[in-house]
Formats: sequence, structure tokens, C-alpha cells
Amino acid sequence: MAVNVAIVGATGAVGQEFLTVLAERNFPIKNLKLLASARSAGKTVKFKGQDYIVEELTHDSFKDVKIAFFSAGGSISKEFAPSAVKAGAIVIDNTSAFRMKDGIPLVVPEVNPEAIFKHNGLIANPNCSTIIMNVPVWPLHKVNRVKRLVISTYQAVSGAGAWGLYELESQMKQAASGLAVTKEKFPHQIVNNVFAHNSKIDPATGYNEEETKMVNETRKIFAEPKMMVTATCVRVPVPRAHCESINIEFERPMTPQQVREVLAKAPGVKIVDDVANNHFPMPLEASGQDDVLVGRIRQDISRDDGRGIDLFVSGDQVRKGAATNAVQIAERLI
Amino acid sequence: MAVNVAIVGATGAVGQEFLTVLAERNFPIKNLKLLASARSAGKTVKFKGQDYIVEELTHDSFKDVKIAFFSAGGSISKEFAPSAVKAGAIVIDNTSAFRMKDGIPLVVPEVNPEAIFKHNGLIANPNCSTIIMNVPVWPLHKVNRVKRLVISTYQAVSGAGAWGLYELESQMKQAASGLAVTKEKFPHQIVNNVFAHNSKIDPATGYNEEETKMVNETRKIFAEPKMMVTATCVRVPVPRAHCESINIEFERPMTPQQVREVLAKAPGVKIVDDVANNHFPMPLEASGQDDVLVGRIRQDISRDDGRGIDLFVSGDQVRKGAATNAVQIAERLI
Repeated sequence: MAVNVAIVGATGAVGQEFLTVLAERNFPIKNLKLLASARSAGKTVKFKGQDYIVEELTHDSFKDVKIAFFSAGGSISKEFAPSAVKAGAIVIDNTSAFRMKDGIPLVVPEVNPEAIFKHNGLIANPNCSTIIMNVPVWPLHKVNRVKRLVISTYQAVSGAGAWGLYELESQMKQAASGLAVTKEKFPHQIVNNVFAHNSKIDPATGYNEEETKMVNETRKIFAEPKMMVTATCVRVPVPRAHCESINIEFERPMTPQQVREVLAKAPGVKIVDDVANNHFPMPLEASGQDDVLVGRIRQDISRDDGRGIDLFVSGDQVRKGAATNAVQIAERLI
Repeated sequence: MAVNVAIVGATGAVGQEFLTVLAERNFPIKNLKLLASARSAGKTVKFKGQDYIVEELTHDSFKDVKIAFFSAGGSISKEFAPSAVKAGAIVIDNTSAFRMKDGIPLVVPEVNPEAIFKHNGLIANPNCSTIIMNVPVWPLHKVNRVKRLVISTYQAVSGAGAWGLYELESQMKQAASGLAVTKEKFPHQIVNNVFAHNSKIDPATGYNEEETKMVNETRKIFAEPKMMVTATCVRVPVPRAHCESINIEFERPMTPQQVREVLAKAPGVKIVDDVANNHFPMPLEASGQDDVLVGRIRQDISRDDGRGIDLFVSGDQVRKGAATNAVQIAERLI
């Protein structure tokens, strides 16, 4: 049963990935409406070999639309998502605008698919780093309650948008030619460097927004409002796919073998843990995949109670971290 | 009182940095002997404007040498350091050959300078990641015992040797020109990628050697044989200076303000923690410095007992992580 679909922010990095994922998964689309700002309206975008003209987003854009994917920034979602809902659409919002609002489901389909059907017209898609961490941690949490998570991220530049990728590429060309490196939108040089995630810092906690999202969203998705989570989010000069170093404290002892057995059966997870060849999750291999790669599965030797496990994961933040997760939610809806 | 100095591995990345640091710090050298393999013997190396001919390392190289810096790999140290000691030299060994041996001091001068004088001719210089983490953690440990450390590293390619830097640069040129990237010595592509540290993995624990060093060396240097330490060591496409995300669990509550006060007075530490401008420790700024940059000083919000602190640090692994630390040991000896 095909449905009418709208994509808000169709010309952005995630918007483009929505089209790719919808085509790949053969999502049953009756009419496809591509929406963007006035600046992008009139552009032509290809979908399954056909040309689509991008239309300007207005409050009247959503007549007869069944599913509206929003990925054009939080302020656009706040302004236009209510109009889409009023017109009868179900909004799947990839921004942070509504994620922490009571009554709005925040969904990773591998974790809390039941929440999808509690929507009042709006479902929030979590932050990319949150999704990539939740997919492997949740199946472990189900068999042995996770008490505490200590996470450090290695985040790709395209997480900041298509401009992040452009900035890394242009700085790389400058560095490779021995030229001075020009900063544009990132606060610091990214080629040959690493810096704290470029999101706003809460002066009260010192956590940046990316870190706060990982803490609060995980608690909501897992329905564990007191789960202990700390994160340090960092940008690295990688085009695509985030990595995360995850230290888990379980309620009861847990061996690496038990972790492997659980993860081998977990949806959305692919174990890449080849000790003999030093082959573990890498952004280069996670890029373009929907699975979260998981490896470096080790007993945390800092603890003598067997309750610690270390993992290293990598996932494509534009796919499973954004577009794929949202399309999976839509698939369950129809 | 000037002394005779020998450098074993004089043509390597760390050997070259020894010369830079000895010159900068005006170390009182009477005669300087540069030693390397037969392959490098005969090469000319500059020190303070003068040319020195590299000599082939033999068991007879150490007559009248007072201080011998070794940085030519563990097997060279194992074979030749005993000859240097027998000839009356004090060896400061930058390899891992003797670090964990009983009776051999393993020294970070800011942490355990008293151990220097317990030597029997040989003093071990710790692993670079260990030094960079120990310098800021030790002064905190002195005021509030550290119970547990969870560390994730972001390590520069030059930590692998001068070839690592060459490999990143040549891969960057290929990537910037749109050419296929050629792997040489690293197990995986490093440009545009991140991978688990390229050291041997202990199949029993799953920890790689870099991680095991961070755990065991810290316990020895701090004289805390049961300190809980876990580490995940990762290479990033950065030429120089390692970063580390450090989660600390203290015995008693500790506020970020208390941490700042302690670190502001700590030797070898520079606080870079500008929340308003999102300016924190970065390899680009740590490169070429002896201080370890420390920032992202936050209360770990995963804990409700106030005993957790998160930090992000960056230090030049060729300087404080190797050459500078060794020269500081030598300065205390003479």
C-alpha cells in the first residue's frame, strides 16, 4: 500500500541520503514531494531515475502527505512540523527539536519499536551518536542491566552537514600541497587535527550538546531515566561514519564470550573483531552500511568483579545514524 | 659540569628529538656520540650548528660515556644497554624492554623523581601515552586518591616512527588528488580513517600492547599496584601529539573547580579550557610543546556522588612523551 511521502530538507546531506535509502529499501511511495527553502526551490533532484523539482516549504505543503521526513534543522521543524501534523501527516523528525518532549516517541527500532505507535503525529529520530551506541548496547542491557556507560567518540565531519565534508576536503588539498590551511565554518582546523565537538556547551555542566544528547536521549529510549551515562564527543578528520569507544559497567559479571553471543544475534549489529589481523571497526568500512560494526570486545581489566566490558564501534551517522533509522520507523508505520 | 652523552638510534624520529631537546635545554654536553645501525653509520647529523658523524653501535661504543639515551627499539636496548652499563654509563632507555622489570626505575619526573636515584645503571622512560596521562592525573591523585581511570586515546601517526608521518603524508596527497590510497606499513589506511592501535594484541586479554602499557606502567609509576585502569588506544590521522579522553573516579567527591586549582599549580600542565570559545586541547597546539594541555574539565554527570571527573588532554608524544621526559631524568642525574 503505497503512501505519499514528503522530505523537508531534500537538498541537504541527510535529505539526499533519505532518497538513497528510500530507493534501496523500495519504500512504497505513491507521490514524492521534495521540500526545501526558497533558495533551493526549483532545483532538480533524481529519485529512481526520475527528475523531481524541489518545492518551497510552506505551511500548505503537506496536503495528502502521509509520511513527512524532516531534516532541515530544529527551527524549521519547530515551525513547520505542526502544520504537517495538522494536515494529517505523520512527521518523522531528524532534528533535536522535539526529542526530549514528553509524549513524543524517540525511537531506535531495534530498541523501542513499541513507542512508534504512541505517537500523536510526531516521532523523533535520535541523535546519530546516540543511535550508533544504542544499537549494540541495548541487547546487552536486556540480558544484563547496564549500570553505567563511559563513552568517547571519534566523529566524522559530515555529521556537521555537507559543508563539513567540503571543509575537510579543501583543507586536505591545502595541507597536501604545503599551503596554509583556511578555516571556514569549523571553529578549528580539522585536517591533521582533532577537536572537541563543535556544538554549544552548557556552561552549567561543561557538556556540549552532542554529549548531553547522548546522555538524555539514551535514558529516554531505554526508559531508564537514571541510567549513568557520560560522554566526551570529539571530531576527527574522517569524512563519514562515527566511532565510539564504550566502557560498560553491568549489574552482574559479563564475559566477552557472552557479549559476543548476544551481539551475534542482535539486529543491526555486525561483529568485526579479528584479533589475529588487528581488524576492528573502522569508519572506512562502516561508511555506506546500515549495520553498526562492533569489536575490541574485551573484559575491562580495571575491575576485578568481571562487571566491565570495553567495546569499540563504528556506524554510518548519515545512514543508521539518521536516514535509515527514520525510514525503518516509517516502514513500521505503514 | 659537562658530561659525555651518547644517543643510540640518533637518526630516528625520537633520536632527532633528543638532539633538539638537548640543544634547547642547553644540556651540559662534553662529548656527544651519535650511534645507530651500520646502515645509518657515516651519516652526518647537525647539533648546535656542528656536524657529527653517526657511528655504528657496537658493544664497545660506551667507553667514557656518562649518559646514554637509547631509542632504537626494544631488541637493541636488550642487547646493548648492558654493555653501556658495564662501561659505566647510566642508560635512559626509551623502549619498553626494561620498563616492567623489578629494580629498574620507571620515571616521570613530575610523579616519582625519587625513583631516579634507585637505579643500577638503567632507568626506563615510560610509554608516551602513559606519560601524557600521568602528568595531569598524578597531582589530582595526590590530593584525592584516584580509584579508577577509563581512557580512550587519539594517537598521532608519528608515534609509530618517522615512517608513520611519511605514510600519512603520502596517503593524504593521494586522497587529495583523488587517487587510490596505498597502504605501506600501517595495517589499514590512516588518511580519512581511524583504527585500533597497531600494536600486538594479547590474545588472553584482548588488550593491545599500548593499552597494557598504560595500565601496568601507571601502576608502577604511581606505586599503586592495584589501581584500576582501562584504556582503548586508537590511531587517528594526525601527524603529531596524542589526545586522551580521561574519565576519573576519585575516592572522595571532587569538583571541576578543585581540579582546576590543583592543575593550575601542577608542573608540566597547561590548562586550555575556554568554554566560551570552544577552545580545548588539540594536537595542533600541543605539537612542539613540553606541557600537557588539559581541558574539558567537567563533573562526570553519570555519577550522583560527585566522585567523577572527565578531562581531555593533548601532549606531544615525541617531546614530553619521549625525548623531553628522558632529558629531564638526565638533568636530575647530573
